[in-house]
Amino acid sequence: MAKIQAREDVRPVEPAGAAPTRASDTPRAVEALAEQLAATAVERDRQGGHAAHERELIRASGLLRLSVPAAYGGTGASWSTVLGAVRRLAEADSALAHVFGFHHLQVAGVLLYGTPEQHNYFLKPTVDRNLFWGNALNPLDRRVVARAELDGYRVDGVKNFSSGSVGSDVLTFSAWHKASDTAIIAALPTQAEGITVNPDWDAFGQRQTDSGTVRFDHVRLEAIQVLQAPGTVPSARATLRSQVAQLIMTNLYLGLARGAFLEARRYVREDARPWFASGVQRHADDPYVQERFGEFWLRVQAAQALADLAGLKLDAALARGPSVTADERGEVAVAGAQAKVLAHRAALEVGSEIFDVTGASSTAARHGYDRYWRNARVHTLHDPVAYKIRDLGRYALLNQIPEPTAYS
Amino acid sequence: MAKIQAREDVRPVEPAGAAPTRASDTPRAVEALAEQLAATAVERDRQGGHAAHERELIRASGLLRLSVPAAYGGTGASWSTVLGAVRRLAEADSALAHVFGFHHLQVAGVLLYGTPEQHNYFLKPTVDRNLFWGNALNPLDRRVVARAELDGYRVDGVKNFSSGSVGSDVLTFSAWHKASDTAIIAALPTQAEGITVNPDWDAFGQRQTDSGTVRFDHVRLEAIQVLQAPGTVPSARATLRSQVAQLIMTNLYLGLARGAFLEARRYVREDARPWFASGVQRHADDPYVQERFGEFWLRVQAAQALADLAGLKLDAALARGPSVTADERGEVAVAGAQAKVLAHRAALEVGSEIFDVTGASSTAARHGYDRYWRNARVHTLHDPVAYKIRDLGRYALLNQIPEPTAYS
Amino acid sequence: MAKIQAREDVRPVEPAGAAPTRASDTPRAVEALAEQLAATAVERDRQGGHAAHERELIRASGLLRLSVPAAYGGTGASWSTVLGAVRRLAEADSALAHVFGFHHLQVAGVLLYGTPEQHNYFLKPTVDRNLFWGNALNPLDRRVVARAELDGYRVDGVKNFSSGSVGSDVLTFSAWHKASDTAIIAALPTQAEGITVNPDWDAFGQRQTDSGTVRFDHVRLEAIQVLQAPGTVPSARATLRSQVAQLIMTNLYLGLARGAFLEARRYVREDARPWFASGVQRHADDPYVQERFGEFWLRVQAAQALADLAGLKLDAALARGPSVTADERGEVAVAGAQAKVLAHRAALEVGSEIFDVTGASSTAARHGYDRYWRNARVHTLHDPVAYKIRDLGRYALLNQIPEPTAYS
Amino acid sequence: MAKIQAREDVRPVEPAGAAPTRASDTPRAVEALAEQLAATAVERDRQGGHAAHERELIRASGLLRLSVPAAYGGTGASWSTVLGAVRRLAEADSALAHVFGFHHLQVAGVLLYGTPEQHNYFLKPTVDRNLFWGNALNPLDRRVVARAELDGYRVDGVKNFSSGSVGSDVLTFSAWHKASDTAIIAALPTQAEGITVNPDWDAFGQRQTDSGTVRFDHVRLEAIQVLQAPGTVPSARATLRSQVAQLIMTNLYLGLARGAFLEARRYVREDARPWFASGVQRHADDPYVQERFGEFWLRVQAAQALADLAGLKLDAALARGPSVTADERGEVAVAGAQAKVLAHRAALEVGSEIFDVTGASSTAARHGYDRYWRNARVHTLHDPVAYKIRDLGRYALLNQIPEPTAYS
Repeated sequence: MAKIQAREDVRPVEPAGAAPTRASDTPRAVEALAEQLAATAVERDRQGGHAAHERELIRASGLLRLSVPAAYGGTGASWSTVLGAVRRLAEADSALAHVFGFHHLQVAGVLLYGTPEQHNYFLKPTVDRNLFWGNALNPLDRRVVARAELDGYRVDGVKNFSSGSVGSDVLTFSAWHKASDTAIIAALPTQAEGITVNPDWDAFGQRQTDSGTVRFDHVRLEAIQVLQAPGTVPSARATLRSQVAQLIMTNLYLGLARGAFLEARRYVREDARPWFASGVQRHADDPYVQERFGEFWLRVQAAQALADLAGLKLDAALARGPSVTADERGEVAVAGAQAKVLAHRAALEVGSEIFDVTGASSTAARHGYDRYWRNARVHTLHDPVAYKIRDLGRYALLNQIPEPTAYS
Repeated sequence: MAKIQAREDVRPVEPAGAAPTRASDTPRAVEALAEQLAATAVERDRQGGHAAHERELIRASGLLRLSVPAAYGGTGASWSTVLGAVRRLAEADSALAHVFGFHHLQVAGVLLYGTPEQHNYFLKPTVDRNLFWGNALNPLDRRVVARAELDGYRVDGVKNFSSGSVGSDVLTFSAWHKASDTAIIAALPTQAEGITVNPDWDAFGQRQTDSGTVRFDHVRLEAIQVLQAPGTVPSARATLRSQVAQLIMTNLYLGLARGAFLEARRYVREDARPWFASGVQRHADDPYVQERFGEFWLRVQAAQALADLAGLKLDAALARGPSVTADERGEVAVAGAQAKVLAHRAALEVGSEIFDVTGASSTAARHGYDRYWRNARVHTLHDPVAYKIRDLGRYALLNQIPEPTAYS
Repeated sequence: MAKIQAREDVRPVEPAGAAPTRASDTPRAVEALAEQLAATAVERDRQGGHAAHERELIRASGLLRLSVPAAYGGTGASWSTVLGAVRRLAEADSALAHVFGFHHLQVAGVLLYGTPEQHNYFLKPTVDRNLFWGNALNPLDRRVVARAELDGYRVDGVKNFSSGSVGSDVLTFSAWHKASDTAIIAALPTQAEGITVNPDWDAFGQRQTDSGTVRFDHVRLEAIQVLQAPGTVPSARATLRSQVAQLIMTNLYLGLARGAFLEARRYVREDARPWFASGVQRHADDPYVQERFGEFWLRVQAAQALADLAGLKLDAALARGPSVTADERGEVAVAGAQAKVLAHRAALEVGSEIFDVTGASSTAARHGYDRYWRNARVHTLHDPVAYKIRDLGRYALLNQIPEPTAYS
Repeated sequence: MAKIQAREDVRPVEPAGAAPTRASDTPRAVEALAEQLAATAVERDRQGGHAAHERELIRASGLLRLSVPAAYGGTGASWSTVLGAVRRLAEADSALAHVFGFHHLQVAGVLLYGTPEQHNYFLKPTVDRNLFWGNALNPLDRRVVARAELDGYRVDGVKNFSSGSVGSDVLTFSAWHKASDTAIIAALPTQAEGITVNPDWDAFGQRQTDSGTVRFDHVRLEAIQVLQAPGTVPSARATLRSQVAQLIMTNLYLGLARGAFLEARRYVREDARPWFASGVQRHADDPYVQERFGEFWLRVQAAQALADLAGLKLDAALARGPSVTADERGEVAVAGAQAKVLAHRAALEVGSEIFDVTGASSTAARHGYDRYWRNARVHTLHDPVAYKIRDLGRYALLNQIPEPTAYS
């Protein structure tokens, strides 16, 4: 049977000074990692490409095992905790926060779609060898196809928007199974024969998310690696996976809004000068500057309150195990959608409006303050906000819960 | 010593079928009262004036003792519970929700400013005789003056914006004490000699809040009736009273937003017809109608989440008793301010925008749907939202907590 | 042949001190009329119902003939001029501005749909006897039916939303002609046998628009009174009528926005007091008050600029006479739609937000300041703004001009 | 006497195929230049730095003489025409539109501040030798000082935010004159001894505006080169210069908004795919996409209408010559301020929101679509929009015209 393993060529299997596995160590580890990422975030945003070193910092933090249940050696943190980590990391570097969040999303996928045997098969080595997961799941790109063969499948084709694929150890992916006219979901070592990751992601934001293209050439897939077989109707519980994804994005947007806000606060307090017509000696005393910070604060707090509530709803629904109902799942989706829309708006608006208080000098490229808007703008396009609002409207008006899809 | 008593002329001392005093009965009592008020709210909004009968319904509900500690025979509910009642009642009738909320605000004033002896003096009869409190406290109207005399004061002058004064049994009021250049705060039976309540409130909204003018003519005030003596610097705990007031308003606004939303939902589902150019058979299927409901939902949910958080913060600060610090009080004020701004906006915006989905026929006067906007518009002017946002900005930017005033 | 005449019972045929017919007298006449209406607008808004006296003031102003071509004795003003009058009157009293505007809309209907013979038949007495036109045209209410008979039709049924019908001399109306499955458009003296006007309009705004219900009982209609015969496909020029209607509403909304702005300016300058926390001596010096006026100004100016452009486009298209093309008509519709959306928003937003600068005392019913929002809210529901924006989007994106309908 | 000349080292004095000087040729020349600039705008935005070749294209277009009066050999176009050119060029490349606009602003400065002798001294060679003007005027940077000496001054110091300085032939600059505690304004050949232009501009937007730092080392300034002598109180006419500057920016923002809109339209029509949940076959048929384009359109049209009006007001005020009054100048400033705020918002909002309709794939760096927001964000910080709105508020509320400054 195929073994799941790390990319031993690029890194030591386990960092010296073993990383935390206890929940109580998590806040400190997250904070330390956020600070490490912040130190080079502006420069790396400019460069784009693959952040090999920073991915190793993530790995060395021990936080890759954060969402893995204790039964497999992981920290077994709640999703609220994982989402809090995404949020904090995104304040510093939303591209690597995405890579981090999507690693945990793949762990969630194994847990939600897989059997106990598969949990063990995939998650034990994830902890033991500190593996980094990526994805090639974009359901709107149906070019990857799987054909059944003895005890497994052959996979061929190309998948775009594969976040975290470059430099990953394991990949979750979807492939179209023509015979059943449905998709399968599976996972494979990234180094499996026939898989090529093309680091061709070149957006104007979220530049180091390793969202390349993955090519499959006659790749062999074993039965144990198939998390969702053709024609399977996923359970309500399994479809919570897309809610995990939505909340990772929500918290990433929120982290961007917070990051922009915090940096603007620092700049206004330390570096900005009052406008000559304001009549104040200190820019922070300008009534219009204070008003703007009041508005930034409102956007961040509202999004944060709804994101926190949604995280707790997700935790509760996951805690219900297989008995979670479609309606309960729907309530999580509504809580997630409302949080996501507010976080989306907070990230874009705060990311754009901070300049009204920081002023012309703050646009110097060395500050890199435009990255908040650029990162928010790119990432908030994952799925159209108009359809999130429509889903909320259908719920508000008709008590209709969102249809479970890869996006809702 | 002066006795605190009810207006026996206008009502039985205690309703038959004794009202709830147990916390567990509260939700049902609130719901029943809300439904009673809803039945006549449109008609009474048109009439304006004093809702004597509906005030008796409030009294009969047993909910006047909701916030009174069990030690004095009250229900001893948390402020989160009281605020929840204000919110629910305001969905139905925001004028009487205001009267109800301000009754409890006066109870809070006794508890926060008074001595244990005063608690007993005022709150025991409040429960025993089911008294209704009103106020004449407007601190910006300094026409009422108190002059010290033997063991007490004489009070003269006029006070406007005295919500709940008409038909009240007891009045909290402020009076300017020239010798110390400070205000005193005191309470008196409304029927005390020399007090005249003038039911001259005539705003275009919140028409039955009994916010008349109170005239004091040589009114005798005993020492025990003085809650804040001249020159007293109120403790951090005492100044929480203005936060109680702010959160009553916040939940009232939120109730208005919810009321408008719920009524619009009902109308769209039951009474509205699709626009001819929409191409849909059912108005609720119009994509732009769904979008609008999504936006209504977002505003209500965001305001609600922040209002809930602020209520919990208030409960926690009150539970700290006299040891609550100025900083802790400041955090309550920030939580309250952010909730209030969002609730303010939700009430105005939802109250105005529902018509875009309910359409021209819904403007018939018999529906009374304009009352949501009118009530919200009048009540949200209690203190300027611009200064709430400024306070939030100062906190966000400078970590400066709001200065404790009657409005912040 | 039926004669078109005025309601001689209620008024003198011609006011003493003959009213202006020269274009140069128009501004002064409009201004004088606006001031007359302003004097009682608050009180009449409260009363609702039929403003018989003020309708006579309009008649006495000579402005009923403003849009009638000089050939029939009218002033022959451009539509830009008529729309400017609607705008100015709506600052003072948007209900009577609507009655005024809709009178001229009916004149336009005669000119655009009628033959030269009909122009003479209807417009000569309109000027000679100073007739007031109303309408019963609501195309979405198909209860009025016309059956052909010798040289004419018989009309039966009921029509709602008939603005200006109460107290009118002549009525334009539409009736469904089943045989052709199309509507006819015609005009009749309001006093014609079988016509009953029911003054049952009771909305919370635009209360004196006389938008009652008109009942037709076996009403005889002569051929000359039919402006659009069954099955007629209206020319591009004829369909400009709905653009006239849309621009009347646009300018009415703009007048409401201007009226609210001007009244708020006066109040802030003369009556309002500074907020205690503002640190200014004069409310008008509060930086947040100035900011708000800046925003009011922007909304009014933007709407005004687009309304002016649309008026000029309408004038130009009308000047093209029968040769105006569908595309040219479409450009008028786009210019009108963009102006209408901005004016709609300006009226609602300024009408609601002025209170943030005028404050709590300005909500006293005697000021009647809520009427700006109420009038705007009711009138802006004539047709859904969402579909105006959609029409603009289709033009912006696809170069698709709006389909000519009664609303676009 | 010092001669004003072009940088002969870098370019031919006059392009072959002589450029237009007749007004009627202007539209074609602008269009051709816009297309040339568009061809490489994305690539040059990425590179930043000095666009030597494209500046030569501007020079070769003949448009550098557009605003120069015919008396000196120029085209003598109105400012409305020049502003229209800025707008069109900014659709394609807002950085070079800025360089172009600021060239003409310096011409305006000579005309408004200079004597007829100076007009001839500066503008004759500007046309004859096709000179390119830049500036070093930032009045908030007072590090450049001028000391009087025989028949002139010596100038020393450094000036930042000097748009168009790199590669210019002539520079307008301001210098602080300590003896009078006022600034002088003057112009010099950029190649004058002692002037060093440092191409150190490195903002995240408007990257090729050549807004470097200019250093003056003991630079000799002749009397004829001084446009505003120390202690001079500029006339109302002279202070129109800052209104010219404001309207250049306004039209530049508007061009950015239009550019983003036009490119989004093209993308949606040609390249975008419908969202799977939309139920439409063509993305342009999505109701939410159409709505967004409606909103884009509204922003662009409103800003455009006000910008057009402001341009005409500027033309009229300039046509009044020296007799223009402070009030007339104030009206231009109000018209400019209102147009600028709307154009500012249109540029930022359309530049950010187009992605909601163009979607994730449109964020590929090769499209360069983020440049609309980046360019708008940097350039809109020239002076704080909050103070423009305050100025409008003061005018709206108090009839107070903006104080003439370098920014208002």
